[in-house]
Amino acid sequence: MAKRIGSSTIQCSNPISIREAAGVAGQKESQGPLGSCFDKTYQDDLLGRETWEQAESALQSAAVSLMLEKAALQPDDIDVILAGDLLNQCISSTFGLKDLHIPFLGQYGACSTMAQTIAVSSLLTDSGAVNRAAAVTSSHFCSAERQFRLPLAYGGQRTPSAQWTVTGAGAALLDRSGCGPFVREITIGRINDLHITDANNMGAAMAPAAADTLLRFFGDTGESPAHFDLILTGDLGKVGSALLLELLQREGLEISAMHRDCGLMIFDPERQDVHAGGSGCGCSGSVFCSHIVRQLKQQQLHNILFIATGALMSPTSSQQGESIPGIAHLLHITSS
Amino acid sequence: MAKRIGSSTIQCSNPISIREAAGVAGQKESQGPLGSCFDKTYQDDLLGRETWEQAESALQSAAVSLMLEKAALQPDDIDVILAGDLLNQCISSTFGLKDLHIPFLGQYGACSTMAQTIAVSSLLTDSGAVNRAAAVTSSHFCSAERQFRLPLAYGGQRTPSAQWTVTGAGAALLDRSGCGPFVREITIGRINDLHITDANNMGAAMAPAAADTLLRFFGDTGESPAHFDLILTGDLGKVGSALLLELLQREGLEISAMHRDCGLMIFDPERQDVHAGGSGCGCSGSVFCSHIVRQLKQQQLHNILFIATGALMSPTSSQQGESIPGIAHLLHITSS
Repeated sequence: MAKRIGSSTIQCSNPISIREAAGVAGQKESQGPLGSCFDKTYQDDLLGRETWEQAESALQSAAVSLMLEKAALQPDDIDVILAGDLLNQCISSTFGLKDLHIPFLGQYGACSTMAQTIAVSSLLTDSGAVNRAAAVTSSHFCSAERQFRLPLAYGGQRTPSAQWTVTGAGAALLDRSGCGPFVREITIGRINDLHITDANNMGAAMAPAAADTLLRFFGDTGESPAHFDLILTGDLGKVGSALLLELLQREGLEISAMHRDCGLMIFDPERQDVHAGGSGCGCSGSVFCSHIVRQLKQQQLHNILFIATGALMSPTSSQQGESIPGIAHLLHITSS
Repeated sequence: MAKRIGSSTIQCSNPISIREAAGVAGQKESQGPLGSCFDKTYQDDLLGRETWEQAESALQSAAVSLMLEKAALQPDDIDVILAGDLLNQCISSTFGLKDLHIPFLGQYGACSTMAQTIAVSSLLTDSGAVNRAAAVTSSHFCSAERQFRLPLAYGGQRTPSAQWTVTGAGAALLDRSGCGPFVREITIGRINDLHITDANNMGAAMAPAAADTLLRFFGDTGESPAHFDLILTGDLGKVGSALLLELLQREGLEISAMHRDCGLMIFDPERQDVHAGGSGCGCSGSVFCSHIVRQLKQQQLHNILFIATGALMSPTSSQQGESIPGIAHLLHITSS
């Protein structure tokens, strides 16, 4: 049985293996600091498809294929696949994964989806409900931009706090019996609403959720930040990362030495004109499933926290004047 | 540990109690055959709010409040809440549940959401990851109609195969230690795509998924339809129900004697002009969480299968000419 620690952290009864993972990304990401770390990159952001939405589905499908290839497994060997994305009704996941014929549980956590799908996959694997589960997510700059903001051809100006949606996908294979890295503990996020309403400042909307989840994890486990060689957030970007550090400092927690953010790692702020950094489910999805899992496998990282954050809004809710609630799910992962 | 039966059915290690549940609905539903069965109905479909989206959120929040009241519990007594809906980025769930401050896992299964959220909640409860979980969903005729079809004021003609989105919500409390009814087995759905493209014929798009899941459940468990006093589908409606019976008959399975469909139960086809029946996450959500759970608690039903079906499409995917893939998740539930 999984064990509850403190008020809301869950410890797996046995560490769950992230047996393999794969991250794929688009052209702009291939030119960034992590360009050589992805399992595959595409210079054609349409991936030869007819629509941006089909291209995003193709990213998910490619990430899963690469993950299966690395693990030398077939789709039939996976008992359940958990996936979600930013598009309305999560169509990237449906159309990207439908031909695999694997039992499917659609997840919606906005940009927290990579952590959410790994969390639920780990718990289902730990429980015996499944032996192996796949956790998948994606985003695409072009499909997100026209859905959430403006038509690409409009060429709208971006505010300094705006982030750049990553074209990329990640897929991770959770296995009850594989080798490390291992998912050990999980803290499921609560919806935090500090009444931020600026849809061009997602970092500010998500930082309070990341702080809430981290504080609950440290409170529940009695651990301190110094125990970890990396505390990795999803896509808080420049504005949200600074806010997270400030919110935690107010509570007496100092994580600046080991904190990094996928949204700040994936692009070069000097060269790539992405304002506050990268964002989108595919940001932490592609970075975690390629670069981070590889560093864990190679023992360059040993003990990390991965907290992906999501902004739970839609263009409709923003147009109706609603706030932007945030959420953040946390995974404690060790290399062995 | 949960046990896998056959290729893809999961048996909970201990039957998980549906300790309480509550279903709420709108005016049209209150005038239907189940009008007196809901825990609460609203004559004002805006529920005093300013937008249809806020009204839908209020339905979710009302269903959860009633469920908690019946169980004599506070929000703090619930370890995790799983919810989803039809609106873009599942905003009904976010805004309806954010003030509860319960750890939250957004789910996306279109109209299969009630079965999906109960399935995952049951598995998380069974695993020890949580002691109590809430499963929630909703739909609203007015928010769905304008998002998926046409502005209400347009007064478009409906085709005979079209279904009427239910204004309603359901909330169910899964508890490791309560009394019956109990969730015993779960078959997670696979995405089925028979290349249906008519967005006004969701029943046809979803029936193959229901058939696939039922065939896998019967194949895995060796059970036969005659063992069950009810096989309840979510919202296949008239067209989809007939197709499901036909698809199963071809495989030698006869379920017509014990099959019912929430979409056909909730409205009176003679009086209420709903064409092929009710639909939407709130259709099976409100019917299951009020009428069906009550019948199980009162021992009027003993051994049932609940299979909610979903059509995994968006207006964008339909406009781009994509097909409408379907999914169906199954729960085997007993009264004691």
